Amino acid sequence: MKILENGICSIDSLKVSGYREGKYGVTIIYHENSTAAGVYTTNKVYAAPIDITRKHIANGNISAIIVNSGNANCYTKEDGIKKGLELAQLAADKLDIPVEDVAVASTGVIGRQMPMDILKPIAEKSLSQLDNNRESANNAADAILTTDTVRKECAVEHELNDGTVFKVAGICKGSGMIAPNMGTMLGFITTDLKVPQDTLQKALNKSIKKSFNMVVVDGDESTNDTVLLLSTNDIEGEIDENFQEALDYVCTSLAKQIARDGEGADKFMEVTASGAKSEDDAISLSKSIVSSSLVKTALAGADPNWGRIISAMGYSGVDFDPEKVSISIGNNDHDVIIVDSGYVTTYDKPELLEEAESIMKEKTVIIKVDVNNGDFSATAYGCDLTCEYVHINADYTT
Amino acid sequence: MKILENGICSIDSLKVSGYREGKYGVTIIYHENSTAAGVYTTNKVYAAPIDITRKHIANGNISAIIVNSGNANCYTKEDGIKKGLELAQLAADKLDIPVEDVAVASTGVIGRQMPMDILKPIAEKSLSQLDNNRESANNAADAILTTDTVRKECAVEHELNDGTVFKVAGICKGSGMIAPNMGTMLGFITTDLKVPQDTLQKALNKSIKKSFNMVVVDGDESTNDTVLLLSTNDIEGEIDENFQEALDYVCTSLAKQIARDGEGADKFMEVTASGAKSEDDAISLSKSIVSSSLVKTALAGADPNWGRIISAMGYSGVDFDPEKVSISIGNNDHDVIIVDSGYVTTYDKPELLEEAESIMKEKTVIIKVDVNNGDFSATAYGCDLTCEYVHINADYTT
Repeated sequence: MKILENGICSIDSLKVSGYREGKYGVTIIYHENSTAAGVYTTNKVYAAPIDITRKHIANGNISAIIVNSGNANCYTKEDGIKKGLELAQLAADKLDIPVEDVAVASTGVIGRQMPMDILKPIAEKSLSQLDNNRESANNAADAILTTDTVRKECAVEHELNDGTVFKVAGICKGSGMIAPNMGTMLGFITTDLKVPQDTLQKALNKSIKKSFNMVVVDGDESTNDTVLLLSTNDIEGEIDENFQEALDYVCTSLAKQIARDGEGADKFMEVTASGAKSEDDAISLSKSIVSSSLVKTALAGADPNWGRIISAMGYSGVDFDPEKVSISIGNNDHDVIIVDSGYVTTYDKPELLEEAESIMKEKTVIIKVDVNNGDFSATAYGCDLTCEYVHINADYTT
Repeated sequence: MKILENGICSIDSLKVSGYREGKYGVTIIYHENSTAAGVYTTNKVYAAPIDITRKHIANGNISAIIVNSGNANCYTKEDGIKKGLELAQLAADKLDIPVEDVAVASTGVIGRQMPMDILKPIAEKSLSQLDNNRESANNAADAILTTDTVRKECAVEHELNDGTVFKVAGICKGSGMIAPNMGTMLGFITTDLKVPQDTLQKALNKSIKKSFNMVVVDGDESTNDTVLLLSTNDIEGEIDENFQEALDYVCTSLAKQIARDGEGADKFMEVTASGAKSEDDAISLSKSIVSSSLVKTALAGADPNWGRIISAMGYSGVDFDPEKVSISIGNNDHDVIIVDSGYVTTYDKPELLEEAESIMKEKTVIIKVDVNNGDFSATAYGCDLTCEYVHINADYTT
């Protein structure tokens, strides 16, 4: 697998654009008759664009996506549907495609009507700049951001077993309201490989389970989460596990970028739970740790307070024997084993706590726990909880 | 019902004490042959004193409780049990009672052995000061505190229907690691009313469900949570619902004091969900709102971002129709209705948002939501999420 430099524009036949004015931005992704799959928030209160996109994607095909940042178009009733469709119609007119072939997504403040007088000119400007180059890829990745501080993209080239070379490329946004089952996260992923719609949907579901669904910033699940996967059908080959591998890579990279850019986050945390009796157990354990406010603040303060890790495991709902647990705190180079099959190593070697503390001062901290109870493992991604998170969210709408 | 001024010492036949040195404190509550009921953490990883207390309380009777702050005595294996029993033995020797009649509770850092050289002299000093007066009540309430900033106590006098006058009085500690099912909270409640053990346990379970289990500070459930209810059996009468009422009052008052003193909290939040199809639904809705990091930070910033409230309702797992929801933000005097049966009042009256913002600047904020789907309601208690919470928890063990 090879990492590509051109972001979402690594897929040559795509045209994309993005334009922003102040807090409002509009991104367009365009390729006629793309095969499409989608995954959406499970929040009972979901935004108008999700209604529209679900409907437009139902036949397995779309030609364009229009995304706005700055307003979530959620809890806006019929008016919200009307305004979402107006945006879709703008794109349809400009691109000369049916409005039913346009998907819509939104992110921003909930419960306010879309300011169409502001959004329409931005959308028109964005539509007039569709292109396939490094700059349009940047603009597309930038215009969907809200409280994000960095652009998030990933593109790879990979090969099927039959020798077919294909690409997977995507962008996403997400920083706060990032929770158990996707946060306010929008992800748009494309591939040039021809993939049947049902295979595309299954592959997307599988990838999301281990990537976007494993990111926790603050535990609030958004009303607007949407991930769309488009195939331009440019390349034909015998689909095999290498497509899933490339898709997993892109989704996981994007998910990690979200965690690393968590609102106010100073540090990235990766938590792997292994030795679990089932995949669900492994997921619950790793998510419980990565979500814990006390683990997150300990990370902020580089405090190797591992008692909070085992406590978070204890209230995860998973059945395990505390006396068999192993816990380590490490980085990409090495792990400091703090609890070894129930034995607390730091009772005899207090210097290990200092070593763990010094690792926790770094930007990436990897926590591994093993409940020695089976063969399943899972990895969750998160970040520290800082004052900056509080500042960002204390005055969001004002 | 009458509020009493003497805290836990309102129960005349009790003797209590508390003594603290630095971060370590020891509280004693003493009355021979008290009928006793207990409720403990559901965390899979629980502390040694919980093992001891469960065993000692099993016959329905205890004579004393010894509580230490500063060390949780959790994840300390046999050594933890041994040291917990040493504390119990100290109390037993001094009070001339069997060690099996002493309950033990601990709160503090997890995963460190108990520093008995420090704790024993403190326990001895505490035991030498047992008394029944305002000062000993203060000392008992103070010595169990950790990151708490204020003493928490409540005492009431009430009357059974047969005219019997009785009292219920308690103390508690809790500030961080306060979560869905009790946090690091220790509560010790007493009554002079003679109540059969099984009635006592049932009454305690019932009270806890609507008080301590409805407090959320940070969503982390502790390994040490313990609430004990003791009856001194001084007063006899025909037990009726008024006992439950007095117990509910004391437990709810203590629970609110915990929320108000949440780590770093500047504001207290009370969230009532009504119109639910079941009690469980009402509990899930109110807890989901009170737990949301985004609602908590909005409260910190007095930002009436009600979209976060409806979003938290949406991911609570409860089935409801968003179009029928009502939401208000208020204080003890009046409520500002933001959403009225699905209609967003602030679209027409933006001044309502200013009114809500001004209420959110006060110390107590009451959020009410109604899903108009049934007759059940529940109230949860919480606080805002501030920078101070981050500071307190970033360096807890260092």
